[in-house]
Amino acid sequence: MSLITVGSMAFDALETPFGKVDRIIGGAATYVAWAASNFYQPIKLVSIVGGDFPQEEFDQLNARGVEVEAVEVVKDEKSFFWSGRYHMDMNTRDTLVTELNVLGHFEPKVPESYQDCEYLMLGNLAPAVQQSVIAQLKHRPKLIAMDTMNFWMDIALDDLKATIKMVDVLIINDSEARQLSGEFALAKAAKTIMAMGPQYLVIKKGEHGALLFHQDRIFSAPALPLEVVFDPTGAGDTFAGGFIGHIARTGDISFDNMKTAIIVGSALASFCVEKFGLERLKEISHNDITTRIQRFAELANFETALV
Amino acid sequence: MSLITVGSMAFDALETPFGKVDRIIGGAATYVAWAASNFYQPIKLVSIVGGDFPQEEFDQLNARGVEVEAVEVVKDEKSFFWSGRYHMDMNTRDTLVTELNVLGHFEPKVPESYQDCEYLMLGNLAPAVQQSVIAQLKHRPKLIAMDTMNFWMDIALDDLKATIKMVDVLIINDSEARQLSGEFALAKAAKTIMAMGPQYLVIKKGEHGALLFHQDRIFSAPALPLEVVFDPTGAGDTFAGGFIGHIARTGDISFDNMKTAIIVGSALASFCVEKFGLERLKEISHNDITTRIQRFAELANFETALV
Repeated sequence: MSLITVGSMAFDALETPFGKVDRIIGGAATYVAWAASNFYQPIKLVSIVGGDFPQEEFDQLNARGVEVEAVEVVKDEKSFFWSGRYHMDMNTRDTLVTELNVLGHFEPKVPESYQDCEYLMLGNLAPAVQQSVIAQLKHRPKLIAMDTMNFWMDIALDDLKATIKMVDVLIINDSEARQLSGEFALAKAAKTIMAMGPQYLVIKKGEHGALLFHQDRIFSAPALPLEVVFDPTGAGDTFAGGFIGHIARTGDISFDNMKTAIIVGSALASFCVEKFGLERLKEISHNDITTRIQRFAELANFETALV
Repeated sequence: MSLITVGSMAFDALETPFGKVDRIIGGAATYVAWAASNFYQPIKLVSIVGGDFPQEEFDQLNARGVEVEAVEVVKDEKSFFWSGRYHMDMNTRDTLVTELNVLGHFEPKVPESYQDCEYLMLGNLAPAVQQSVIAQLKHRPKLIAMDTMNFWMDIALDDLKATIKMVDVLIINDSEARQLSGEFALAKAAKTIMAMGPQYLVIKKGEHGALLFHQDRIFSAPALPLEVVFDPTGAGDTFAGGFIGHIARTGDISFDNMKTAIIVGSALASFCVEKFGLERLKEISHNDITTRIQRFAELANFETALV
């Protein structure tokens, strides 16, 4: 059994109020894999890179139980490149450069060795590409989770709706939930979106945490109040990786365990933003993670015995 | 032993996207008393009204164990009047009219029968007035909590800082915490504000819940994701009333019990916004409240056993 992760692998150039970096490793699949591999192995990547993508990064991923058989390497082209600048509040950013490069003609091929897929995490990509991966799987995975963004709502809404219909868990942020549903109140937005297909909806609210919806149930996860958010890049993908990693490790897709998975994702994301890019995710130990999760328990759990 | 509540008693005229009301009963002390009297009695009010304030409202408060000996009635003047219009997002509002009336010359006198005060809730008022109540108490209460707003930061910052220094718990919203501290990150803002005196700081974030800070500890309470917020007026005062009411009933000022008090306040506030003014607070039963608090437990609590 395995966890498949589909998404970009990329170079990012970032400017935040705290500094600037050129051409560090990024991409949704990369962040998901680094986060999820703390909990579950093997993780099988589906992605595409150019000849410029460093072998060392593949080696580090391999060492964590991440298989890259279905990462297509196009030798004489360049990897996807994104450059952005964050505003002072760290919740908004401007895209400075987007060079699709190899991602512009990505047609993922799922190899036979990936057909044992039990959990599928579709990182942010063109919805038609996400859908083609689902279509290539001979057995439906136990759980399919999908991340997307407002960009696809703007230019590929029909594709997006068709893909959303096929997944169990949709992960988006609050403004995307409002855009997709046409509703301002998130509780209403959630009902509209779940009626589009997904049984579970996760709405990320940045510094305000995340909400999980399923039928009439709601879970509200806090974010850790941080004194400094150094670089938010990849926090959403890291959240998704922690979430699906915990689900895959436990094999439990109950609502109560998804609550815990949301917390695991939030804890991983809280590390991610402490340094640029993948740097912090590459440093943390299992002990760091369990200590952080205990901080979330102190932060959110309360007693009702005295009420 | 008693819980003293200081604050305005008023008439409000409100416009929300859902409707409009003229001259309904409002005021910080009124909301605090209605909320807190679900948990603790007697509550002793300190306030001022004009001859236009209905006797029926005093009778209803009396019936809930709220004493009004120190509510000054100025027969030939009018009660404080506030009129406001909420924007579509319900988080922002315009003040249309503020008529201070009797509140313009409020000099509270704490009677001898109030000297058994164990818990003091200072509702939003001029900080010098809040301070004069503290000064008149011969024995320091076990816990003093204080609400305030940006208006006093703008026009009476020195008075405000002197008053803040004398209280145990300061309750403000996120933008007020940023203004008072000069810090954007709430975790930093909290440290700066606690250094001004209060051991505990509550930061209300509207639809995003509330944070409680004390030394290095933080608690994050969710808000109930509501499909409709009918009228947010008084939600902050109701929150404060539920908070202090729970503390007074349990007599427990530990951090862990304050967590629960924050949830009790949040639950009461979630009722308050369901109808105009005090209407919903006057309807709810003890059973409604405990059921709502259980919804908060489902909303926020999670298991870490499987992590």
